[in-house]
Amino acid sequence: MGTGVRMAGRPALTVKRLMGVGPVAPLINRRFAGPFNTDFVRAAGTLPWPFSSQPRDFSLPNSSWGPEMMQLYEHYNSQCEVETDAGTTKKGPWRRLPSYNRILKYATGGVHLSKIIQSKARLFTRNIKVEGAAFEYVTFLNKEERRCVCVFQGGHLLEGPPGHVHGGAIATMIDTLTGTHASFLSGPVMTANLNINYRSPIPLGSTVLMESSLDRTEGRKTFLLCKVTSPDGSKIHTEATGLFLSISMRHLLGA
Amino acid sequence: MGTGVRMAGRPALTVKRLMGVGPVAPLINRRFAGPFNTDFVRAAGTLPWPFSSQPRDFSLPNSSWGPEMMQLYEHYNSQCEVETDAGTTKKGPWRRLPSYNRILKYATGGVHLSKIIQSKARLFTRNIKVEGAAFEYVTFLNKEERRCVCVFQGGHLLEGPPGHVHGGAIATMIDTLTGTHASFLSGPVMTANLNINYRSPIPLGSTVLMESSLDRTEGRKTFLLCKVTSPDGSKIHTEATGLFLSISMRHLLGA
Repeated sequence: MGTGVRMAGRPALTVKRLMGVGPVAPLINRRFAGPFNTDFVRAAGTLPWPFSSQPRDFSLPNSSWGPEMMQLYEHYNSQCEVETDAGTTKKGPWRRLPSYNRILKYATGGVHLSKIIQSKARLFTRNIKVEGAAFEYVTFLNKEERRCVCVFQGGHLLEGPPGHVHGGAIATMIDTLTGTHASFLSGPVMTANLNINYRSPIPLGSTVLMESSLDRTEGRKTFLLCKVTSPDGSKIHTEATGLFLSISMRHLLGA
Repeated sequence: MGTGVRMAGRPALTVKRLMGVGPVAPLINRRFAGPFNTDFVRAAGTLPWPFSSQPRDFSLPNSSWGPEMMQLYEHYNSQCEVETDAGTTKKGPWRRLPSYNRILKYATGGVHLSKIIQSKARLFTRNIKVEGAAFEYVTFLNKEERRCVCVFQGGHLLEGPPGHVHGGAIATMIDTLTGTHASFLSGPVMTANLNINYRSPIPLGSTVLMESSLDRTEGRKTFLLCKVTSPDGSKIHTEATGLFLSISMRHLLGA
């Protein structure tokens, strides 16, 4: 199990270029601008969280991200938009997926589902706002290669074994990455099975690279492979398979 | 997989008796009284958390626990101490396991390991102090039957699918319960494999009953079975197996 995970395109750990959050923010503001007038959104868009009234995108760098987390982020983020020979820019092979602490179905264009559930509910992986304390992660999708990668830095509130990330926190990130990947491949899905082999513990505060790749689909079933390694891929921390079942959202919501 | 889970001793959902936290607190105070003089400990022991300087035992009831959580708690807690024919009390078949947000090896008598790791580290399942918001759970051990049960109420900060507990939060509780059980059976262990079948989603705020039973041991390996059901056992939410490897703590700590 897990030996079939494809690990193509291992990044070299060099900072390609330092991109600010600027080029990304306007896109996000437009997407979630519904309740606001445009001028207000533009003004708010210039303010950093928590002063902005826009939802915070947790996938953007903050000061808690260590050098390895930043290097991997830059590696993939620099491939989201690439320069053409004519000097203009075009979409690259990777796409950074924004991440919020409410249920926002960015997969299908920002449908806000949380109105129908209790307003206090928050996404498990984004329920702690203190930067660097819990789950710091950013996910990138490569549509053509049917791959997703996630750069994950586990904070001090995720402790399991002394000084190391809890097995449940690792399982949570595997479920999050493979579930996100499956939803891009197959539409709305629910986790049916996770089979996780823990090879070596992950120290608190360290950064790991997670890769999800498509194994196969069978009717309503999407099978994924997932590997968690050290940033340069030399050390395997965890290997897993995930099985996801396609569902209709109405079914889950009891409608 | 999972079909071999033994479900003996299903509790009837009746409140047996209402036990306060009083009888338990003095024991805990004695166990962790190291840095304090005895008089101070006695005085502090009369104050509730957060006014007490004693570590908070998260396994004791709080006002966020719903009726189903309380009923299951009472069912097992009432069997921790039983009356003899002579009218005195003696140990019952079950034992409630205290639960802290630091690494406290209660399994071997309260050895405090967290001095050697960063002082900010907190156990993943106890990193949110707001009552009812995240993981509310209490674990009971039945040494003779080699079983552990856990009563778990998942709060609004554990959201995965809209209105339901995150698959990773369920995996976290399975890892926590089976890992605790394995450590009582086999001493210090690390999770080597979790294989989790998600049968039906768990609504936020609801209570589930989790049961862990010993499958077998093979050398350093301890195999456990785990089942997550509705409080009366009629609905299966999740079935899982866990494999744990015996380790020396020195190995994990790099000593």
